[in-house]
Amino acid sequence: MAYLIVTYDIGEDRVNKVRKILKKYFTWVQNSVFEGDITEGKLMKCRLELEQVINKEEDSIYFYSLENRLNYRKTVMGVEKELTGNIL
Amino acid sequence: MAYLIVTYDIGEDRVNKVRKILKKYFTWVQNSVFEGDITEGKLMKCRLELEQVINKEEDSIYFYSLENRLNYRKTVMGVEKELTGNIL
Repeated sequence: MAYLIVTYDIGEDRVNKVRKILKKYFTWVQNSVFEGDITEGKLMKCRLELEQVINKEEDSIYFYSLENRLNYRKTVMGVEKELTGNIL
Repeated sequence: MAYLIVTYDIGEDRVNKVRKILKKYFTWVQNSVFEGDITEGKLMKCRLELEQVINKEEDSIYFYSLENRLNYRKTVMGVEKELTGNIL
């Protein structure tokens, strides 16, 4: 189990598919950012799904893996978003 | 000194100003993500500059502060970007 921050920059015609996959595994916390606890097995599944969708020459997804959510301090300037409930 | 990951979601008419400020303090690693080591004093200066520019009702900036860059593991899917050299 690890705590992940996932950020992405995806071409417009693929971004909704990528969000749909990430929403299954993480919490959507900002337009291009997801967060959440995940097991190694689920992370592998998530990555396999993403690989089917992204264009590896153009798209970019970063997985910042922390041992747990106590390993960082998050401060928010402006709005703290919680987008998971939104319809894609 | 801490290592920060900074993510943002900013209105179109303000985003270039925000990027210009963040570029002074961090490395631009993805469209909406900056990273870098920063002292407490410089971070305060950076936050003050950002506060002049952002709309607190609409914009959102997250500062994920890690004690140091060894506290996380980053994996990249697709393109690893390095945008700092780009002209805004």
